[in-house]
Amino acid sequence: MNASRAGVTREPVHICEVGPRDGLQNETKALSVDDKVAFINALTASGFPEIEVGSFVSPKAIPQLADTAEVFSRIERRPGVIYSALVPNERGFERAVESKVDKVCVFTAATDAFTQHNVGASIEETLERFKPVIVASRRQQIPVRAYISCVVTCPYSGRVRPDEVKRVALRLLEIGVTELDLGDTIGVASPADIDRLLEALDGVWAPSEVTFHLHDTRGSALACVLRALQLGVRSFDASCGGLGGCPYAPGSSGNLASEDLVYLCDGLGLSTGIAVDDVAEAARSICKVLSIAPRSKFASACGPQSPAS
Amino acid sequence: MNASRAGVTREPVHICEVGPRDGLQNETKALSVDDKVAFINALTASGFPEIEVGSFVSPKAIPQLADTAEVFSRIERRPGVIYSALVPNERGFERAVESKVDKVCVFTAATDAFTQHNVGASIEETLERFKPVIVASRRQQIPVRAYISCVVTCPYSGRVRPDEVKRVALRLLEIGVTELDLGDTIGVASPADIDRLLEALDGVWAPSEVTFHLHDTRGSALACVLRALQLGVRSFDASCGGLGGCPYAPGSSGNLASEDLVYLCDGLGLSTGIAVDDVAEAARSICKVLSIAPRSKFASACGPQSPAS
Repeated sequence: MNASRAGVTREPVHICEVGPRDGLQNETKALSVDDKVAFINALTASGFPEIEVGSFVSPKAIPQLADTAEVFSRIERRPGVIYSALVPNERGFERAVESKVDKVCVFTAATDAFTQHNVGASIEETLERFKPVIVASRRQQIPVRAYISCVVTCPYSGRVRPDEVKRVALRLLEIGVTELDLGDTIGVASPADIDRLLEALDGVWAPSEVTFHLHDTRGSALACVLRALQLGVRSFDASCGGLGGCPYAPGSSGNLASEDLVYLCDGLGLSTGIAVDDVAEAARSICKVLSIAPRSKFASACGPQSPAS
Repeated sequence: MNASRAGVTREPVHICEVGPRDGLQNETKALSVDDKVAFINALTASGFPEIEVGSFVSPKAIPQLADTAEVFSRIERRPGVIYSALVPNERGFERAVESKVDKVCVFTAATDAFTQHNVGASIEETLERFKPVIVASRRQQIPVRAYISCVVTCPYSGRVRPDEVKRVALRLLEIGVTELDLGDTIGVASPADIDRLLEALDGVWAPSEVTFHLHDTRGSALACVLRALQLGVRSFDASCGGLGGCPYAPGSSGNLASEDLVYLCDGLGLSTGIAVDDVAEAARSICKVLSIAPRSKFASACGPQSPAS
């Protein structure tokens, strides 16, 4: 049952769909609530076990996501599926609770240069801001995921050492975070970086407790996924249609596309619960609304008319 | 020196650039001899150890490559670099020798359905056609590479069993081929297929004697490369800018892009002799001439102006 193939044992893979939040946040065109609800319902129907619906940050900061509460109130929730949201502070947490989110996500980075540019705070200051969120979440038994951005390279300060990531990961553990998500924010990671990161985290966070959030900017994301799978990671973020692009390299691919990831898992015999053709169809639909082409290779290649799909 | 990283030992990687032949053959716009010569010279300057320059098939069959002899006569050859060409039969071989090719390439497939559609012959008949080429090549000490197309799936007959590939690979060995190139022609391979193929070839062709020719149609090519590297393969084909598309899925990616492959090797600490930025620049130049966008993620992301390159 658990034989390995391509060096990967057969445990199921958990994929969190981040298109509605991380994806749409970085697209130019703003969507209506109707369009967002239809998109999320299509993702639910595709079989994703977890969907990041939106963000309870200040509507002034990210206008594209100002309607998250309304979206939450209108999506069809499938039992067992986790509908999560980004929460920057206590005020955001209160709004998230009102919307009955299943998981809250907080975010920091591996470098002060990035957090300063991103939210005008040091790493330690970002932790101070979301500490109360973690305490309140624990009280209400809501799981907390913490993102660390720029775990390989920072667009402002360059190459990041794995021990810098370890330092932040250790701090997150200390303040009570239960789920760690490592982001290769500008999409430069090599499979060798996956080794280095997991080695650095050894004894702090086990591979099975880590999620990778990879960007496919230079085409290596799935090679990094394969390496992470070989080392015991079973949780990944991805974005339907590769939505989101890359704000640090305009015009290029950004988020790893969900359908490309599901196709890889299918080929390795790893169960995800997700129907790849449904994801590709959802990608084509949302990209039509956004007036862009899907950035996934799978959706480009495997249309309903494709002889080889 | 030879420590492993991401499960890959540090032997150098050989990359054969197939853009001028396999790439241009599948692009709509035909190029002038001047443009082809400039492209190949740029590839030589980028550091490729091997470049497939063109094809000595009948000019009637593939008009885009009718000028291969003229291209050969005008390129600047760097000592040590292998300039190869496709050769279908004895007449093609004579023309190749006149052009002083360093290696000849012959082609068959893993299924009769594909060779019938492609060249109107069974697999065995394709072997009969190029047997005299192999004999003549040996006499003149010119190496021969043999392609087997459709080693995972055939667009006409579906899934291919590894033992079908083994059967053809064994026949090629029997008739004197010295270099085997396995093509995932429609770009469906999973890393697990790399395992299956190398297992099937065990005792016939060693991983170190095999080249993989992967297409990135569904985004998994570099994950397959990583798996092949872990299993001891050190030779790959790739196409600058991902030239060539995929004739079986119009509009989608085809050939694995050379610059994406070089970027992966660089990240793994594997020497290729190739400068990734020069390849990306060559990709942007040739794609401008062809009026298409580069299909590589690296060239799209890492322009000279990119802050993250």
